[in-house]
Amino acid sequence: MIVETQTFQYPGRLPLQSGAGLDGFSLAYETYGTLNAARSNALLICHAWSGDAHVAGYHADDTKPGWWDEAVGPGKAFDTDRYFVVCSNVLGGCSGSTGPASPDPATGKPWALSFPIVTIADMVNAQALLADHLGIEQWACVTGGSMGGMQALQWAVAYPGRVRNVIALASTARLSPQTIALNEVPRQAIYADPNWRRGNYYDGNPPNAGLSVARMIGHITFLSDDSMREKFGRRLRNADNYGYTFEAEFEVESYLKYRGDAFTRRFDANAFLYLSKAMDYFDLSYGLPSLAAAFRAVTARFLVVSYTSDWLYPSWQSKELVRALLRNGIDVTYVDIESRYGHDAFLLEVDRLAELTRDFLGRQA
Amino acid sequence: MIVETQTFQYPGRLPLQSGAGLDGFSLAYETYGTLNAARSNALLICHAWSGDAHVAGYHADDTKPGWWDEAVGPGKAFDTDRYFVVCSNVLGGCSGSTGPASPDPATGKPWALSFPIVTIADMVNAQALLADHLGIEQWACVTGGSMGGMQALQWAVAYPGRVRNVIALASTARLSPQTIALNEVPRQAIYADPNWRRGNYYDGNPPNAGLSVARMIGHITFLSDDSMREKFGRRLRNADNYGYTFEAEFEVESYLKYRGDAFTRRFDANAFLYLSKAMDYFDLSYGLPSLAAAFRAVTARFLVVSYTSDWLYPSWQSKELVRALLRNGIDVTYVDIESRYGHDAFLLEVDRLAELTRDFLGRQA
Repeated sequence: MIVETQTFQYPGRLPLQSGAGLDGFSLAYETYGTLNAARSNALLICHAWSGDAHVAGYHADDTKPGWWDEAVGPGKAFDTDRYFVVCSNVLGGCSGSTGPASPDPATGKPWALSFPIVTIADMVNAQALLADHLGIEQWACVTGGSMGGMQALQWAVAYPGRVRNVIALASTARLSPQTIALNEVPRQAIYADPNWRRGNYYDGNPPNAGLSVARMIGHITFLSDDSMREKFGRRLRNADNYGYTFEAEFEVESYLKYRGDAFTRRFDANAFLYLSKAMDYFDLSYGLPSLAAAFRAVTARFLVVSYTSDWLYPSWQSKELVRALLRNGIDVTYVDIESRYGHDAFLLEVDRLAELTRDFLGRQA
Repeated sequence: MIVETQTFQYPGRLPLQSGAGLDGFSLAYETYGTLNAARSNALLICHAWSGDAHVAGYHADDTKPGWWDEAVGPGKAFDTDRYFVVCSNVLGGCSGSTGPASPDPATGKPWALSFPIVTIADMVNAQALLADHLGIEQWACVTGGSMGGMQALQWAVAYPGRVRNVIALASTARLSPQTIALNEVPRQAIYADPNWRRGNYYDGNPPNAGLSVARMIGHITFLSDDSMREKFGRRLRNADNYGYTFEAEFEVESYLKYRGDAFTRRFDANAFLYLSKAMDYFDLSYGLPSLAAAFRAVTARFLVVSYTSDWLYPSWQSKELVRALLRNGIDVTYVDIESRYGHDAFLLEVDRLAELTRDFLGRQA
């Protein structure tokens, strides 16, 4: 399946949750499958923190497929024979959409920290304009894991008439203080890098050392105590015996360093900061008397999935969400999948996911 | 209770686990209570990563007492009316004992990274020389939490005739890969600070930005998801509404930043690195067919305590230790204390600890 990334350009003003606004923006997106004549089979996949629009298939020059290829394609969990699948890179990101690395039209130079803070609600409002552009009045389903799940929930809340089903994986209705902490420390690691220069590094060396440390923290939170024991144990990389040095000796050390460094070749540090703040601010109960109050106008059906070893967005957060949905009499199915893979399970437990999505979406089809 | 830190100077050579050695070293230590005539009531408290010899009471200029004052004193968990309590700063540290910030006798300049790697076994061997100096042939009890618990276990294994009881709190017999990962990322944060200069910062600015980030990671691991919700929730620091900036807004953010920055005023970054490596290398089963094999010669009785919400040294690690002790027919009592305080529980759940230590030590007295 050869696919291409397309770009949606919106020339008008996008008002933002903060009160600021963007005069024009772009979203990179990809589509898979065919929109039916009734335009009723569109399915939106929202990506997580470091994801992009390239969810499945191959670009002409790809050596490996999109980030969720195992779940998206003919006959897969998100079946492109049945659904017209759309995936768009988020506003504020750095993979083809407008974000802090994009040129500020007023100056022609990268926005850097003068880019306005965007929220999950802003990302979804931008996606809604993309949906208009694609002629999609209502999504058959909006889905995503982690930050993608937050967008899916936000869609149901902000555009009740435009979403028939929501599938939220390894996600939450509001970030916990532990997760805010696990976003703040990576930010501090970037701020501490002198190359960061308060975000103005685009004409010099980027803050790769800080960004690498930031990403390493992330990788710890994506795995679990169990999966790390299975994957690495206390194995040494190149020797049978301890070297008694500060070189990376344990396999887990070199894995983290490798993943941290690799990340700096594909991600912009400022975009990383902006997306982390978007998540921190995500709280569907913000300004409301309760979380349940957030879902009063919602009409979509929900499939909520958590994973037993996910400690970044633990199962209790999905249960809290489910209780708030039930309080409103909303049709919700909840599954807590037994898994050792931690937060990454939403990407890895694809067989179980395929069963669930087929049964959940099939019920209505 | 006014106390003073004393210094033990050992002039001879201390062979190290790595094969290197130290020609002379110092240990800072404090004592509380009175050694009885039979010299049978000595109790050693081993401190954790960032601790020091000042476990209880007040120095003449103190505004607050030692780090475990609630647990150490007359009638407390470690009762100074009954025990002669000793606490020594570890070898490799920076609070009065020889470590990387100390002058290398060969050059007169700070060792920095030319200081040899020390292990938990080396720390304990140095403490054994302090015990000789104090005329203590056998400890009534060796205890500690976290890295302090590792030292207590190492004492029982390395000096079976010199330890009657071990009380190991929130600890482990070998570091898990997740904990190694949670040590490696803080190290990388320090390495990434240009002020670190491969450890040679003693004549310039220390790598405080890196050390602060390192410590912030630590603080997340000391707390629990639950305790963070209780302590901070999603509360904002100075406002009712989001500010949409990169300033610290959530209380949890400013707490971490404050703790990270405060740490740089009392701790040496290189010492932080050395102690983290000492923990990573800690594995009582290293070079043995099993963990049980490590305890074959052990004669001490054990009280092993874990805390249900401690995810840095989770209960399964204490259970693994208990099984290995039982395999050798060793007298061991295990308690998994229900607590919301995470790893910090070993410092905070003092009332329950007092009950346990009185009953455990009283049984033999």
